[in-house]
Amino acid sequence: MMRVPGRGPFIRIGMTSGTTGEPVLIPFTEEDYFGVFCEGAVRSVWAAGIRKEDIVHVAFGFTPFMGLAASYDSCEHLVGCLVIPGGTWSSLMRLKMIKKLGVTVLMGTPTYLLHLAKVAQDNGIDPRTLGVRIISTGGEPGAMSIPNTGVRLEKAWGSKVYDFAGTQETQYMAWTCEEGVGHINDDLLYCEVLDPETKEPVEPGQPGELVLTDLVGKTHPCLRFETGDIVNGIDPVTSCKCGRTLSIFKGFSGRTGDIIKVRGVCVSVAGIENVIRGIKECSDNYEYLAVKNGTGMDEIKVRVEPSKDIDPAQWDDVRKKVAETLQLSFMVNMDVEILPPGTLPVFELKAKRFRDLRN
Amino acid sequence: MMRVPGRGPFIRIGMTSGTTGEPVLIPFTEEDYFGVFCEGAVRSVWAAGIRKEDIVHVAFGFTPFMGLAASYDSCEHLVGCLVIPGGTWSSLMRLKMIKKLGVTVLMGTPTYLLHLAKVAQDNGIDPRTLGVRIISTGGEPGAMSIPNTGVRLEKAWGSKVYDFAGTQETQYMAWTCEEGVGHINDDLLYCEVLDPETKEPVEPGQPGELVLTDLVGKTHPCLRFETGDIVNGIDPVTSCKCGRTLSIFKGFSGRTGDIIKVRGVCVSVAGIENVIRGIKECSDNYEYLAVKNGTGMDEIKVRVEPSKDIDPAQWDDVRKKVAETLQLSFMVNMDVEILPPGTLPVFELKAKRFRDLRN
Repeated sequence: MMRVPGRGPFIRIGMTSGTTGEPVLIPFTEEDYFGVFCEGAVRSVWAAGIRKEDIVHVAFGFTPFMGLAASYDSCEHLVGCLVIPGGTWSSLMRLKMIKKLGVTVLMGTPTYLLHLAKVAQDNGIDPRTLGVRIISTGGEPGAMSIPNTGVRLEKAWGSKVYDFAGTQETQYMAWTCEEGVGHINDDLLYCEVLDPETKEPVEPGQPGELVLTDLVGKTHPCLRFETGDIVNGIDPVTSCKCGRTLSIFKGFSGRTGDIIKVRGVCVSVAGIENVIRGIKECSDNYEYLAVKNGTGMDEIKVRVEPSKDIDPAQWDDVRKKVAETLQLSFMVNMDVEILPPGTLPVFELKAKRFRDLRN
Repeated sequence: MMRVPGRGPFIRIGMTSGTTGEPVLIPFTEEDYFGVFCEGAVRSVWAAGIRKEDIVHVAFGFTPFMGLAASYDSCEHLVGCLVIPGGTWSSLMRLKMIKKLGVTVLMGTPTYLLHLAKVAQDNGIDPRTLGVRIISTGGEPGAMSIPNTGVRLEKAWGSKVYDFAGTQETQYMAWTCEEGVGHINDDLLYCEVLDPETKEPVEPGQPGELVLTDLVGKTHPCLRFETGDIVNGIDPVTSCKCGRTLSIFKGFSGRTGDIIKVRGVCVSVAGIENVIRGIKECSDNYEYLAVKNGTGMDEIKVRVEPSKDIDPAQWDDVRKKVAETLQLSFMVNMDVEILPPGTLPVFELKAKRFRDLRN
């Protein structure tokens, strides 16, 4: 392959999703992109068992979102797979092409890949018959953080499910191995877990806010970058059955702003998500709101669409089951509401399920 | 950059737009893609004056359409530009990013780039202030075939306009140089121009159906591929002011099916398009139909939306002007209808403006 030497200065520009404001642009030199950021990514690809023989479809819109762009480039340029783009394809077109091209690996956000499975089912296609052997998710918390999301994906697609995470501001951070355990790219990033209020380090393995320092990138070095993510902890015990000795990552539990304190109890958004995804009568469409109730008290309102095959006569039973399970998990009563299927918006990239309506 | 040696067997799969049926899948090996197909593409990029220092935005949906994918890859991997993807960006987001990132080169279909200019104007942005110095179009006939499309793009964006063409089945075929002259990649393709009815070669430089033979690709060699395109001719005089000695391509005039024979006169769809794009009162939204009139005679019906700034009171004058200009160009009366702006669909990739309703 003909290639120009020393491209640049920049060969890629990342762009944050703008969760907390105007999108931030992040430039990458060739060395920082292929040599470092994709190096972090390709470990996740390799750990998932993706090899040169695989045909990979990355379901994303080809906007400058480096999480999935680096997965794409790692599969294509570093592992050597055939990678199929399909930026503006509809979900049905994607399903048709997955079948026609014999796609063996599917990458995308967990929300979108669950949605895609549902579109298949709604159109009389059993996703498990499509031959996708590996699913690798990123862009929002997946199996590594919300185990029941992994279970749902696995059941829907009949595939082994992997998950990865990182920030565009620093590096690809962590990914699951064949044991389903999260591993941190210790040589690329220095991770600290701090008490969100005191900003002091927590005890090893304990939850707190994730702060990252980039150890290798030269274009946009970030020192002690406050991710705003709350993690379940980084385990000091680094032995894993898979044989890797990288630090073990216990997943994300939410954003610093996504911890809802209700009557003294901290409830994380990801915690609620995990409970709902564990209840088979619930669909993948739900949202949770922090509201003030009639007496000015903070309250959590959970709104769920039941699965399509649930008879409306059973909806109230579903409501009770969700409320009881949430109560058991958090020791807090939440106001659960059942919505007819199709009420809530369907998210294709990062789902926005939490809204704080207290102020 | 770390890279696997000998990727493959296939590294890209092209997919035709399915103009004439079910999309055809076209596999490329690394050698055929980067070594040959992109070699054809990068000549067009280089002739347009696109260099390593440029920031390029390719406006397309990242579906497996090799025409724009190869332009993208040529700019990124062969010239070494910074290329900005934006698959699912809305037109407004694209405009915002063109400005924010200082994009100097814009690539896409002529139809979409004219649409993008209009979205800018409708939102109070003068596209000429955005700093795009080069526009390079492909995917459907542009400046090389319909000169007035080039003029419109140039006026709207204040950029120098280039055009390229090719087939995914064979190779990147032709592109314009700085003199606006089309040149053929003679070493990659052998081009024949045949009489569409007798299938005999026409005289050099004369119009006819384009038949291509791939001289270099190994994955999917095509011998005497009938493109279904009618061309204005390939000029035996190969001297161009730019100094290149490749055969000169006089552009496409339509598809074999797009020649409408009315009362003995052959009218090409591209010919009508060129007339309409030359009338300043007409917008970029129009269509033409081949119909049977009340007496069973073939007739061409042209439906045009006037520019937004034309007073409805003037619409009938516009109608007369279009009808007269068409009559002068083709010596055939056509039935011209003026439609209120916003009536016709807006195409973002390949525009479908012609429908044959005779049968």
